[in-house]
Amino acid sequence: MTELAKTPEPPYYAVIFTSLRTRGDNGYGVMAEEMVELAKAQPGFLGVEGARESNGFGITVSYWASEEAIRQWREDARHRIAQKLERETWYERFTTRVSKVERAYAFER
Amino acid sequence: MTELAKTPEPPYYAVIFTSLRTRGDNGYGVMAEEMVELAKAQPGFLGVEGARESNGFGITVSYWASEEAIRQWREDARHRIAQKLERETWYERFTTRVSKVERAYAFER
Repeated sequence: MTELAKTPEPPYYAVIFTSLRTRGDNGYGVMAEEMVELAKAQPGFLGVEGARESNGFGITVSYWASEEAIRQWREDARHRIAQKLERETWYERFTTRVSKVERAYAFER
Repeated sequence: MTELAKTPEPPYYAVIFTSLRTRGDNGYGVMAEEMVELAKAQPGFLGVEGARESNGFGITVSYWASEEAIRQWREDARHRIAQKLERETWYERFTTRVSKVERAYAFER
């Protein structure tokens, strides 16, 4: 996740997930990896990027072809278990924002 | 920047900036702080969030009331100097995505 995603020309959708983790792993690392693999296999998945500071603050952005693809991923059975644990165990707080990417510009040295 | 932004009800805009830093500071830290302070003073600025991994990969998301506010910030004279240095010195590569936030959900323990 710690590399730039290669996405197609807009329009497409971005789910911006900003969060503050609780202390300790509590199974987060394994589940997070599993969720990334599961997301990659979803129809309409375009890419994911993530970064976290040592203080527990992090940002994950996933890219999707359509709102329907986002809805299907949100309803995925295994993902719903992870979402429950997010609230119960892993995060102090978080914000999820669903946005439509209208334009993009890439720079490479 | 390493805390959750408090944004109003959607719709509003998010500029998703994902990047890989070059090695060394080269004046980046001071300029980055100045840019955050300058952005906060712009009309239509709603908030900013950022996280960077130790390998140099980072995500910054800034939130804006309108596309016009984003355009004005992009054209700001001091910001344009920083943008030039981004390409010349600070970043191996980056992607800027302009998106319209359609819905948002916040969780707090």
